[in-house]
Amino acid sequence: MPNVSLKGQHMPESPIRKLVPYAEIAYKQNKTVYHLNIGQPDIKSPQIAMDAVATHSLEILAYTRSEGSEEYRNKIANYYKSKDIDVSAREIIVTTGGSEALLFAMGTVCDTGDEIIIPEPFYANYNGFAVASGVNIIPVISKIEDNFALPPIAEFEKLITPKTKAILICNPGNPTGYLYSKEEIQTLAKIVKKHDLFLIADEVYREFTYDGLKHYSILQEPDLDENGILIDSVSKRYSMCGARIGCIVSRNKQVMATAMKYAQARLSPPTLAQIASEAALQTPQSYFDNVIKEYEERRDILIAHLKQIPGLKVGVPKGAFYCIVELPVKNSDNFAQWLLEKFDVNGETIMVAPAAGFYSTPGVGLNQIRIAYVLKKESLIRAVEILKVALEQYQD
Amino acid sequence: MPNVSLKGQHMPESPIRKLVPYAEIAYKQNKTVYHLNIGQPDIKSPQIAMDAVATHSLEILAYTRSEGSEEYRNKIANYYKSKDIDVSAREIIVTTGGSEALLFAMGTVCDTGDEIIIPEPFYANYNGFAVASGVNIIPVISKIEDNFALPPIAEFEKLITPKTKAILICNPGNPTGYLYSKEEIQTLAKIVKKHDLFLIADEVYREFTYDGLKHYSILQEPDLDENGILIDSVSKRYSMCGARIGCIVSRNKQVMATAMKYAQARLSPPTLAQIASEAALQTPQSYFDNVIKEYEERRDILIAHLKQIPGLKVGVPKGAFYCIVELPVKNSDNFAQWLLEKFDVNGETIMVAPAAGFYSTPGVGLNQIRIAYVLKKESLIRAVEILKVALEQYQD
Repeated sequence: MPNVSLKGQHMPESPIRKLVPYAEIAYKQNKTVYHLNIGQPDIKSPQIAMDAVATHSLEILAYTRSEGSEEYRNKIANYYKSKDIDVSAREIIVTTGGSEALLFAMGTVCDTGDEIIIPEPFYANYNGFAVASGVNIIPVISKIEDNFALPPIAEFEKLITPKTKAILICNPGNPTGYLYSKEEIQTLAKIVKKHDLFLIADEVYREFTYDGLKHYSILQEPDLDENGILIDSVSKRYSMCGARIGCIVSRNKQVMATAMKYAQARLSPPTLAQIASEAALQTPQSYFDNVIKEYEERRDILIAHLKQIPGLKVGVPKGAFYCIVELPVKNSDNFAQWLLEKFDVNGETIMVAPAAGFYSTPGVGLNQIRIAYVLKKESLIRAVEILKVALEQYQD
Repeated sequence: MPNVSLKGQHMPESPIRKLVPYAEIAYKQNKTVYHLNIGQPDIKSPQIAMDAVATHSLEILAYTRSEGSEEYRNKIANYYKSKDIDVSAREIIVTTGGSEALLFAMGTVCDTGDEIIIPEPFYANYNGFAVASGVNIIPVISKIEDNFALPPIAEFEKLITPKTKAILICNPGNPTGYLYSKEEIQTLAKIVKKHDLFLIADEVYREFTYDGLKHYSILQEPDLDENGILIDSVSKRYSMCGARIGCIVSRNKQVMATAMKYAQARLSPPTLAQIASEAALQTPQSYFDNVIKEYEERRDILIAHLKQIPGLKVGVPKGAFYCIVELPVKNSDNFAQWLLEKFDVNGETIMVAPAAGFYSTPGVGLNQIRIAYVLKKESLIRAVEILKVALEQYQD
């Protein structure tokens, strides 16, 4: 019998996936499970996007251009202009989700064995894209004590080798909720210019910033014309995760020409989802105002209640809809399993994402979890009550 | 300024893409261009599929499971059973087109530098997926004189090294239209079993077989349970290229568990397109009967007219909707450019795909082109007339 490759064996499993069998046990026990583990928003997708799909008049569900339909890319460019990001349609390639944009970016800047530096904790699937692309992720630790701010420049420079090709950030961050300041982006710009690296920024949570703070994109930074590669997606912006539409954006012509070759190989991004995503661009500002208000309130309630639990540490997220929580437990993997398998309060329990999977450095983040606040406020309050009781009962 | 990777530079451009600037010149000259170069069928998608999308009742366009929705996969398994391919839903992962299924397959069986043997000429995008995956394609030449039949077993065995991980076939073939017989599949089964390799079969044209011939799938071959990996797609079957829905199918549990890790990293295949594809499975047999009849008639007319051109050689395709044609020219790249840029008959010309891009061996296929018979019969007849005049006028 032929064996799968070592690469295939090294492909990481999602940190949440490992919990699925335990969630199934909880369901079999008829428990109600509050899902603090997932990034699928409960917010409705814009009606205008869903209507566009319902009223399409296609007779042939044909390929679009590999870079996405011309009309849609022009409208994306207008969207960016409204965010003070000045790019044209030819600096945009539509991708199958932010996931594919990341694969294109890694394949464009890295050869096998090349390195990308990423502040950790980071979005766990970066590991999967890196293994698939033959890229090594070099983590630089950001700390809960600093609210996961950008690590000092010296920490990055210690890690730069001839194999380093890029620094990758997620801004605002999944799983940290950290929003990089303009100054931090400028610090990163200096590092990548000095060392001739790319700066790849995953900005899929751009809209989700709180406390009146404004997102500063790497492509607002004039110095980054040649070095900046922006990753984007409609998944979170319009609560359209299932569309699988994103894009890769860069003013570097060589980057775009190369990413285009990857785009051509897979022919076309999904056509129906482009129709939905193009219509979604007409979503009124009131939709976002309501969504942001809702998330801000959820965040406030979540953090306030979490802070009442003794021995628990939590950063205050300024964006996205996640936070990292440090628990008074030794191993949050075991704790998360126990929550599902062995614990309940009147038939209710919670599912959380153990944070070790968001770190690349072994042994770090073992006592942390990620909470996604994509549930209604009442549910979040109840979920935190359950967490409190659980921590009182749990024996490491 | 940082440079893109060598890998990015080595990503091949599609053989058709290189002609696009010349097509634009032809358009500027107000020429009518008959497109013999593309694989986008002109057949309407099944109404039932388009209706399913129009009448969906989703409020949130959410992720599906990474392996595709349970219901859809169960229905795919039933479809396969109707084709005498006995697989269950858990042996199927829904992918973003056949393209992604090929990437998952290569990532599952190959490490960087490993080799896959492919009979050439082959679908040009295999090159792109191979570069992206760090895989080397080792071609084994199949010949127009043999109608592109399976090369002798000895030719494969000459090429097998410790780095060989799989043999990849496309059946029926793009660009050859060749349909492998049951005996040829059994010959391949013997080679891969003997040398402990995987057999990956791209069967996206399964439905398109002519002259009453039946397709024989690698998964109908009982000996291939551990070695067989099937690549599939709805693109051609239902003329739904823009859906971007395919699947990877294998009875090898290790293969499925590994492909699943790639699927998890990219979260989910497109949701709307899964709705369309699930509904498409109810397409009545009459739809296929009509489509096959149409393609068979097109093929007959195309081949009959091509054979009247002196000095031209053409295989008779038994499946798919392509054929390879050998022309009395030295370099079909130059000829294809000339057709667009310099030539017309009463304002009409043709666009063809030069075949060199379908070969991996340098210098082979230089005098060949691929013709896709996805145009109406009248257009095909006219296009061949234009080709005849062009060959009379063309000077190498």
